[in-house]
Amino acid sequence: MQHAIDAMQLGAVRAVSTGASLHIYLNRPEVRNAMSQQMVAELQQVLHAAEATAGGPDAVRVVVLRGEGGHFSAGADLKDMAGARMRAMQRAEGAPDPIAEVNAAFGHLCAAYANTPLAVVAVLEGTVMGGGFGLACVADVAIASDTAAFRLPETSLGVVPAQIAPFLVERLGYSQAKRLAVTGGRLDAAGALAVGLVHEVTSSEGIATALDKVLTDILACAPGALAATKALMCKARFTAAADLVDEAADIFSRAAQGPEGQEGMAAFIQKRKPTWAVT
Amino acid sequence: MQHAIDAMQLGAVRAVSTGASLHIYLNRPEVRNAMSQQMVAELQQVLHAAEATAGGPDAVRVVVLRGEGGHFSAGADLKDMAGARMRAMQRAEGAPDPIAEVNAAFGHLCAAYANTPLAVVAVLEGTVMGGGFGLACVADVAIASDTAAFRLPETSLGVVPAQIAPFLVERLGYSQAKRLAVTGGRLDAAGALAVGLVHEVTSSEGIATALDKVLTDILACAPGALAATKALMCKARFTAAADLVDEAADIFSRAAQGPEGQEGMAAFIQKRKPTWAVT
Amino acid sequence: MQHAIDAMQLGAVRAVSTGASLHIYLNRPEVRNAMSQQMVAELQQVLHAAEATAGGPDAVRVVVLRGEGGHFSAGADLKDMAGARMRAMQRAEGAPDPIAEVNAAFGHLCAAYANTPLAVVAVLEGTVMGGGFGLACVADVAIASDTAAFRLPETSLGVVPAQIAPFLVERLGYSQAKRLAVTGGRLDAAGALAVGLVHEVTSSEGIATALDKVLTDILACAPGALAATKALMCKARFTAAADLVDEAADIFSRAAQGPEGQEGMAAFIQKRKPTWAVT
Repeated sequence: MQHAIDAMQLGAVRAVSTGASLHIYLNRPEVRNAMSQQMVAELQQVLHAAEATAGGPDAVRVVVLRGEGGHFSAGADLKDMAGARMRAMQRAEGAPDPIAEVNAAFGHLCAAYANTPLAVVAVLEGTVMGGGFGLACVADVAIASDTAAFRLPETSLGVVPAQIAPFLVERLGYSQAKRLAVTGGRLDAAGALAVGLVHEVTSSEGIATALDKVLTDILACAPGALAATKALMCKARFTAAADLVDEAADIFSRAAQGPEGQEGMAAFIQKRKPTWAVT
Repeated sequence: MQHAIDAMQLGAVRAVSTGASLHIYLNRPEVRNAMSQQMVAELQQVLHAAEATAGGPDAVRVVVLRGEGGHFSAGADLKDMAGARMRAMQRAEGAPDPIAEVNAAFGHLCAAYANTPLAVVAVLEGTVMGGGFGLACVADVAIASDTAAFRLPETSLGVVPAQIAPFLVERLGYSQAKRLAVTGGRLDAAGALAVGLVHEVTSSEGIATALDKVLTDILACAPGALAATKALMCKARFTAAADLVDEAADIFSRAAQGPEGQEGMAAFIQKRKPTWAVT
Repeated sequence: MQHAIDAMQLGAVRAVSTGASLHIYLNRPEVRNAMSQQMVAELQQVLHAAEATAGGPDAVRVVVLRGEGGHFSAGADLKDMAGARMRAMQRAEGAPDPIAEVNAAFGHLCAAYANTPLAVVAVLEGTVMGGGFGLACVADVAIASDTAAFRLPETSLGVVPAQIAPFLVERLGYSQAKRLAVTGGRLDAAGALAVGLVHEVTSSEGIATALDKVLTDILACAPGALAATKALMCKARFTAAADLVDEAADIFSRAAQGPEGQEGMAAFIQKRKPTWAVT
């Protein structure tokens, strides 16, 4: 049986499921996967569809973001942006701002991938620019090929990497984010590894192997426990650890007494793999 | 005269004082220093006893956490955990949750070492797993031998590294913490150094020398000034520096006019070591 | 015409403008640029004067902080500090605390450079100690020569690096900041690079080239867009990215429709450099 997500009608994105992994391809290689409004909308749809499978027999547990044709993404689509500028000039007073709307849609997209209970992996090749740079920052694990070239061109065009800036701070810390922002954010793969933007660099040929290894590691984790850990870490960004002790204890106890904790203990005692690790 | 802490009745922990340093050994080598409830309680007792010496002639100024028998710690004790699960199943409605209680005790332990005014050094060898990984994260300085192997096995067992997660974020930043959490957190010593989990890697033979150097550096600092600096940095995690200027100025002035500031200035003028540096 | 800032009457500081860059030299080489109260006041004056040029024909867009004579700065001036101690002992009850005042002035200086809308570059050579270490931490970009030697001597003198501590946390993250604080903060240039205190290390001869490259990168960015990006990142240190989406969209839209966005788009279409990049 084909996975339901594989049958979705998509244009700017291609989604292919393999077991519990969903590979999402930005699919406009003729413009280095520049993010059109359609692509942004479809990336949201696919993620929501994947999240909705939780607990079912075909549940998606990890999404892999990557680009078709050797590039990740060149960032915002300039044609869409020009259209929004045109509508902005022509709009009636008090009407919503089309530029802000297009921009906010991209911000909500990044936030959705940043905060999903699913694991998110990004495979970064070739151009990783502007919005593509931002999306790369929200993945839990980022693998880069040595062809990857990162850039934040916004300020050189007189605009602000506004949706990207907070995710850069989240990923790199305030200091490295600020440095990249004021200097145009040029990094090669090795530089991206040095600042923690990516976690592993490989040759183009080595990507499949590196990705397999990461997916195996992720799929060895119980999906509910993984989601709970991500949510708790998100909270710990802005809360002192000492203030989270009681909440953490409740989360632990519920997990231990829930079906995943029971199965994990049973598998451990019986010296077998737990059900979620058999993929 | 033997130090009072050396005379404490302890079973799962061994404490040995040398001057102003207190070496605390996790002492269950037969189970790679798995943290029983007794060990957690004793680690708290020893820390409180050490803090209580402040200002006295035998004051402890730095605690060194390490494991007996070549391993730091394998994490939670599974026998204790199984006992808590049993009690959880049998408890009356409305009774406290024994699993959450055992878990919270470990969280309070980490918080106590994270927030102590004393300097904390961890020496990490062999297995550094689960709760051991968490405790390693709270030390001010972490020295690893090249035998150290880090792991977060919780999610592969269907449970959540719940008390550990916030301390991982505190230590590694959100991005690296999240990456380790979704992939099972396997790191060797070099990997731990690369992400800032440890600050120095040495051969097993080199640990004594590396530790001596760190202790000498720490003991050159006035204990009150060191504690005030730690407390201020803790506040600065969640407060903008500009908002701390007046509070910092008061802290500085009090230190400068207090006994440590007076002695420091006198020693500087007289070209001698201050009293606290003569150990 | 000479730039107005070049004509300012200064004693402990020297300011030289080159196009849109203002080079600010700590200018007390006979005491390794120890920061007297006069120097602190003048560094504030020069920054305010530079900020006041915004939008004008001679607008300063980037300030470069560096030291005369091969050292960045040895930190607080001990003579000034001794004077403040003397006044503290002699002051009437209820009178303001001169030690806290001198210290707060330095904190306000760091905060002013940390939060300026201008880009800030630090060139770090030789001694970078105490307050000099703190000031180095607030620059957006820090270039070190391989002669640079960092140190936090405060706690060994019985006092607290109180104004510096929060900026260390901002720059290095909590964990590395804490480690340096308890061990006296000794780093050479390579060590400073490893923890992200500096972004590039070069030979003394290589500084001019490295600085030119950074300035070229910075000046390719539209000044208003750069300032807006810095301000948004500052907010993102303590606010979740998802909560900034709408505000970021407004910032983006205003920039796109403002003069810089218009010029950036026009230059892009006409395949020419935007006006701000022609320096």
